[in-house]
Amino acid sequence: MKVRVTIDRRSEIADPEGHTVMRALHDLGFEDVQEVRMNRVIDLEIAGDDPGEVRRRVVEMCEKLLANPVLEDFEVEILG
Amino acid sequence: MKVRVTIDRRSEIADPEGHTVMRALHDLGFEDVQEVRMNRVIDLEIAGDDPGEVRRRVVEMCEKLLANPVLEDFEVEILG
Repeated sequence: MKVRVTIDRRSEIADPEGHTVMRALHDLGFEDVQEVRMNRVIDLEIAGDDPGEVRRRVVEMCEKLLANPVLEDFEVEILG
Repeated sequence: MKVRVTIDRRSEIADPEGHTVMRALHDLGFEDVQEVRMNRVIDLEIAGDDPGEVRRRVVEMCEKLLANPVLEDFEVEILG
């Protein structure tokens, strides 16, 4: 099954990479940019037919390896 | 307006970071993982009220700075 994990840095956590990109956009003349946040998407292909079981496994992967629970929130979406 | 840009590496382009993450997941016992692709999401806040005009600006930002047109495809979504 195809699974998409979206990992967002929590809004209260500073995002220095996003800040740098915003300054670069301003330098290019895009002065209408007020905020930039750099987040991550991980697309996985998982063996298995049971969406509930696949979701449970992927949440476990996020907790153990893919996401940083102190800085980030994650969302698991089964694409089928 | 809030805008989400999703940037995916093209499927024919190798993803060494994804491959390394897949091996780490296998080492942790997640042997049901068959593919991992690491992609990016950029969340922007843009001054402006006209969704068409904001989208046009963000596509221009992607072409000039945010995405690599040789390796990546991007999608612009106006969140409102």
